Amino acid sequence: MRQVAILGIGQTKIDEHWDLSLREIGGNAAFAAMQDAGMDKIDALFIGNMLSPIVSGQNQLGTFFSDWVGLWGQEAVKVEAACASGAAALRAGLMAVASGEIDSALVVGAEKMTDKAGHDVTAALATAADADYEVEQGISFVGINALVMRRYMYEFGWKHADFAPFSINAHANAMHNPFARLHQKINVEQFEKSSMVATPINLLDASPIGDGAAAVILVPAERVASLKGKPKITVAGSASATDSIAVHSRKDPLFLSAAYESARRAYEMAGVQPGDIDVFELHDAFSIMAALSLEACGFAERGQGVRLGLDNEISPNGRVPVCTRGGLKARGHPVGATGMYQVVEVVQQLRGGCGETQVDGARVGMAQNIGGSGATILTHILKAE
Amino acid sequence: MRQVAILGIGQTKIDEHWDLSLREIGGNAAFAAMQDAGMDKIDALFIGNMLSPIVSGQNQLGTFFSDWVGLWGQEAVKVEAACASGAAALRAGLMAVASGEIDSALVVGAEKMTDKAGHDVTAALATAADADYEVEQGISFVGINALVMRRYMYEFGWKHADFAPFSINAHANAMHNPFARLHQKINVEQFEKSSMVATPINLLDASPIGDGAAAVILVPAERVASLKGKPKITVAGSASATDSIAVHSRKDPLFLSAAYESARRAYEMAGVQPGDIDVFELHDAFSIMAALSLEACGFAERGQGVRLGLDNEISPNGRVPVCTRGGLKARGHPVGATGMYQVVEVVQQLRGGCGETQVDGARVGMAQNIGGSGATILTHILKAE
Repeated sequence: MRQVAILGIGQTKIDEHWDLSLREIGGNAAFAAMQDAGMDKIDALFIGNMLSPIVSGQNQLGTFFSDWVGLWGQEAVKVEAACASGAAALRAGLMAVASGEIDSALVVGAEKMTDKAGHDVTAALATAADADYEVEQGISFVGINALVMRRYMYEFGWKHADFAPFSINAHANAMHNPFARLHQKINVEQFEKSSMVATPINLLDASPIGDGAAAVILVPAERVASLKGKPKITVAGSASATDSIAVHSRKDPLFLSAAYESARRAYEMAGVQPGDIDVFELHDAFSIMAALSLEACGFAERGQGVRLGLDNEISPNGRVPVCTRGGLKARGHPVGATGMYQVVEVVQQLRGGCGETQVDGARVGMAQNIGGSGATILTHILKAE
Repeated sequence: MRQVAILGIGQTKIDEHWDLSLREIGGNAAFAAMQDAGMDKIDALFIGNMLSPIVSGQNQLGTFFSDWVGLWGQEAVKVEAACASGAAALRAGLMAVASGEIDSALVVGAEKMTDKAGHDVTAALATAADADYEVEQGISFVGINALVMRRYMYEFGWKHADFAPFSINAHANAMHNPFARLHQKINVEQFEKSSMVATPINLLDASPIGDGAAAVILVPAERVASLKGKPKITVAGSASATDSIAVHSRKDPLFLSAAYESARRAYEMAGVQPGDIDVFELHDAFSIMAALSLEACGFAERGQGVRLGLDNEISPNGRVPVCTRGGLKARGHPVGATGMYQVVEVVQQLRGGCGETQVDGARVGMAQNIGGSGATILTHILKAE
C-alpha cells in the first residue's frame, strides 16, 4: 500500500437548504474541494450517503454526482454504513488510491434530510437500527440511545447535568465555524431545561439534522511532496470495525467495542497512542456517545468519559480537544455527510486554519464516525508533515 | 496491487421467498461461499444491495450481515450503484485485498424485492434513474429502456422478433440451472405474443425481479496456488465507468459508452481481447441491453448486436456464449444481487461445472453489470489457471 494524502477540502454550510437540491449541495462541496486542490480531472468518485433512496427517491449517487461535477465517464460509487457512510466512503477511496488502481479520488459525504417531515425523517433514521429486532418493537433511533444513556447514568452514578460540558463546548466552538448549523452559546441551565426528546436525552443532548456536504481529494502522498505551498497531510491510520447491529445483542451495551477496535488498529497503523492525538473529532450524535467514544479510544477509564468534560479538558485548549468546529451537536449532523465533515475539520486544524478554536500546534488529528448505535465505527488518523 | 483469486462461491435460488428474510437470503449465500472456500474467518464483508432501505427499512447492511454470518467485529460495508451494486461490491472488496489492507473478503450481492406490491417495486426501481430530470416526468425505468429499444429498432431497421433469440437462449439455459427463477422454454411465437409492458418491451423482453443472493470469497492469488484440488481462478480484469445518469443527456443514447470504457480497461488489465472471452455473462435486464452490451464490448458492430442471436452465436456452443445460466432474463434479476450472480456463474463455467450448458474448455470469462440504463457499468474478467 502506498501512502495517501489529502490535497483538497470543501464543505457547505449545514442548514435547511430549501433552495438547493441534493445534487447542488453535494456538488458545491465537491467543487470547493476540487478548487482547493487545483484539480478538475479526478480518476474516481466515492460518495457516502445514507438517506437519498428514502428522502430523495434517488439511488446510484456515485454516477449521479460524477455526472453533475463533470467527471464524465469516470468510476463512481456510493458507500453506505448509516451515519458512518462518510468515513466509509473515505476508506473506500483510500484503498483505491493506496492499491495503485487509481491515482486520485474525490470523496464526498452528502445528505439532504429536511425535505421530509420530522416523523418521516425519524422513520428514515431508524433504518440504521435493526429493522427485524429493534425497530419492529416500535423504538426510535434516539430511543435506543436513550436506553444506553439511562443505563450509563445508573451504572456509573452520573446525573444528567454532568453531560452538559459536551454540548456547551460544541456550541461554543460552533460560534466560530461559518459552516455550522447552530450559532448559539448555551449554558448548564439551558441544557437542563431544554425539551425532553426520549428520557434522559433532551434537545441539547441531541445533534440537529440538516442538509450538507463535505468533500476531500485524495492523491498519492508523493505527489503532494512536490507541490509548493501545500501542507502534506497524510491519512496515517484508517480502520473500520463492527459490533452487533442490535444494541441488546452486545455483551456490554456501555462499551463501544467497534470504537475500541477501529481506534486500536488506526493507532497501530499510524504508530501513535491516544496521548499523541492533538485534536479528536468524535461522533457526538448524542452526548452519551461522546462519553463512550472517549472511553473506548483510551482517553478515559470506563464510566469516566464525562469527567473529561467536567474537568474542562475537551476545549480547544484542553488535553483532549473534541468537536473543535462544533461537533455533530452544533455544527450539525447531516447523517451520511458527517464523517466527511469530521475529516475536513481535522484537516483545517492541521492546516492551522481554525482561528479562535485552533488547537495550538496540532500535528496529529483523529476523526471517528459511528454508524447506528455503535454498530459500524471507522477511525481515521491524519498527520501533518 | 497484488493479484486476487476467487476461492469460494455461493448462491441461493432466485424466487419469491416468502419464508425467508433478507438476512436469511444473504446469509445463506454467504454461508455457502464460506463452506465452498473452507473458511469461517474473513477480514471484511462487502455487500451490494440497492433496495433494502426502501423495501426492508434496513440500512447499514454491511454490519447487518457481518453480525448475522458470524464475522463479529470485522470490517463491513455496503456498496450501491443501482443494478450494478453487486459488481461494485466486488470491485470494492477486490481493491481492499489487492491493496494489502486485508487478506480476505466476503463479497455478497443480496436483494429482497417481493415483499412489496408491484407498483411499489416499480417506484423503487425508478430510483436508478434521474429523480430530478427523468422520474419527475412520470416515466418508469422500463419506460426509459423502451424508448431506447424503439429508437434502436428505428435507427437500425430491426423488428421486435429479431430480439427473440436473446430470451429464447436465456430461457433454454436456465432449464439446467437449479438456482434460476424461471424454468420454462419459450419460442418465437410466445415471445411475440407475450403481454406488452412498455412498447416495444413486452414481458419476454424483460427480466423478472426476485429475492436472491450470491457471494464469493476473495483471497490473495498466491494463497490459492498452495491449495491442492482448488482451481486457481483470478480476477484478471476489473473496471468501472460511468455515463450521464439521464439517458437524454447522452451524446448517443444507443451506445453504452460506460460498457465500452469499462470493457476496454478490463481487457487491457487482463491482457485479452474480445475474441479471447470464452463466456460472457452480460446484463440482459431487457433484450435491448443484451444487444447494446455486445456492441459496446466489441463483439458486434454498431446496430448489429441482435445479429449474433439470429446467427445462433450466443448459445453455449456458439462463438459468444452469453447468459449460460439463464441470464437476468430467466435466472432472474434481484437487482443488487445480479452482479454477483454473474460472477458466480462465470466461476462455475471456469470450474467446468455447468453440465448441459458448459462452454467447452472455458478459461476466460467476462461479467458485465449495468446500473441504471447504462449509467454505471462494471466489467470483470476472470481467468482459470
